[in-house]
Amino acid sequence: MNSQPSFQDWVRTHGQRTELALEHLLDAANTNPARLHEAMRYAAQGGGKRIRPLLVYAAGELGVDSDEQVSAALDAAAVAIECIHAYSLVHDDLPCMDDDDLRRGRPTVHKAFDEATALLVGDALQTRAFEVLANAQCDSDIRLAMISALASASGSRGMAGGQAIDLESVGKKLDLVGLKQMHAMKTGALLSCSVQLGGIVARLHPSEMQHLQNYSEALGLAFQIVDDVLDATADSQTLGKTAGKDAANDKPTYVTLMGLDYANKAAKDLQESAIASLESFGAKAQALKDLALLVVNRGK
Amino acid sequence: MNSQPSFQDWVRTHGQRTELALEHLLDAANTNPARLHEAMRYAAQGGGKRIRPLLVYAAGELGVDSDEQVSAALDAAAVAIECIHAYSLVHDDLPCMDDDDLRRGRPTVHKAFDEATALLVGDALQTRAFEVLANAQCDSDIRLAMISALASASGSRGMAGGQAIDLESVGKKLDLVGLKQMHAMKTGALLSCSVQLGGIVARLHPSEMQHLQNYSEALGLAFQIVDDVLDATADSQTLGKTAGKDAANDKPTYVTLMGLDYANKAAKDLQESAIASLESFGAKAQALKDLALLVVNRGK
Repeated sequence: MNSQPSFQDWVRTHGQRTELALEHLLDAANTNPARLHEAMRYAAQGGGKRIRPLLVYAAGELGVDSDEQVSAALDAAAVAIECIHAYSLVHDDLPCMDDDDLRRGRPTVHKAFDEATALLVGDALQTRAFEVLANAQCDSDIRLAMISALASASGSRGMAGGQAIDLESVGKKLDLVGLKQMHAMKTGALLSCSVQLGGIVARLHPSEMQHLQNYSEALGLAFQIVDDVLDATADSQTLGKTAGKDAANDKPTYVTLMGLDYANKAAKDLQESAIASLESFGAKAQALKDLALLVVNRGK
Repeated sequence: MNSQPSFQDWVRTHGQRTELALEHLLDAANTNPARLHEAMRYAAQGGGKRIRPLLVYAAGELGVDSDEQVSAALDAAAVAIECIHAYSLVHDDLPCMDDDDLRRGRPTVHKAFDEATALLVGDALQTRAFEVLANAQCDSDIRLAMISALASASGSRGMAGGQAIDLESVGKKLDLVGLKQMHAMKTGALLSCSVQLGGIVARLHPSEMQHLQNYSEALGLAFQIVDDVLDATADSQTLGKTAGKDAANDKPTYVTLMGLDYANKAAKDLQESAIASLESFGAKAQALKDLALLVVNRGK
């Protein structure tokens, strides 16, 4: 008899938990100013795969205890990381950045509302992320460590910095080293931070945090390679956003630098390397291992 | 013999302390990505009156202790509040918001760099504010209380929310109650937060925090009335930004709603009320009292 829930069940349960936590920890849509709060919910609750919250919860399972404090801290972390991710998408989609009309199969925030509101939505979602962590119902040291990790991963030496490097790379010929560094900051830092937040809540030892770091670095790189493969091969409807943008903008990608076959192979190798990093955790790391498979096989 | 430093000396000393703290707590301009960090410094170190950091330091003087921890916490608070203020100016100046070319007598960030960089500069300055507070060299409870207060004051129920209400007010006829509420969020929340951060570091009692709150609410309203008076009466060179914008945009202001004479009288009354709120603090509140005078008399 197998009492382990299937990974599909795990994803469904923790996806629902993410939606509930967002519902609970975002301001109500009728809180004044209502239009801004409605737009913030539009941006953060518009679906998506919730990969970052799932990584938070999966890494949180590596700990020994699971009480109310742990549960509240993981929910806060899941919401915070998703608020940061959502803010970055709203700002990236603006006309002065990627100028995208479509996101997750719906009009982007500046299309559904207006540019000025989209700017404020991103700003306020970022603030909310830190506010949720600061007010989480768990120990002070956990809250501060999470805030510090999230700020480091999302600021000018992380996600926002990666965006800045990406801006400068349009029309230039970034080589593979440059491309990896850019993506490590732009996408990788926040993915790594997701598992790091779970690890902080689980009070893992530094050596265990290092295993998680190895896992998330491989996962982050695999994630971006798969993103480039999908951008080059899938249509807009499958992606839920405009396909083929990178090629149209003459941006370097793993596909243009490596070729499609080698990019697919590299993603598979990285997935295996990510899973191997988790060996010492045993069965407790099953969700993290399954998530590595999910990331690499998404869109297939 | 008078050993008290003059208020002019106090302002100069604490202005210099703010610049030093910014220099120390912002990333170096050559940190990768260099263009982003250079633009962040352009935005945050471009002068300005530093009223919010001065309020932090002045409120910090109300405490009994002054040791290295207090000093480090006040510097972190001063930098954090100025980073939030600077980010809001950079985003407000963008074409989709106020579309301003001039700020503090220099080209705005999107003019000196470009729009996409200005967007990221604002985003990353906000992140840096929370990172600086999370990593301040002081007790955990102080750091968390500061982060929570700053997030509450600057997010969708504070500064960013006030911006959203301001957007919706263009061309509409806000009445005096609506105008006050908008400004209490847009400008007042962050000014109040400045003294609140100082009070948190000084470990003031709740009743003392309430006096500070009364002070800062009166000060915030006076600040905005004076802003409107200056916008209506001063030229762009004196202001360091484009004058007469509100009238040109048909935005309601205290001057259009109250008339110039009554607006000037209201600012003076509020200044006196702000100073009266500080009575129980005695001589320790001298800098806060002098700052109330400075705010109302600025530009004169």
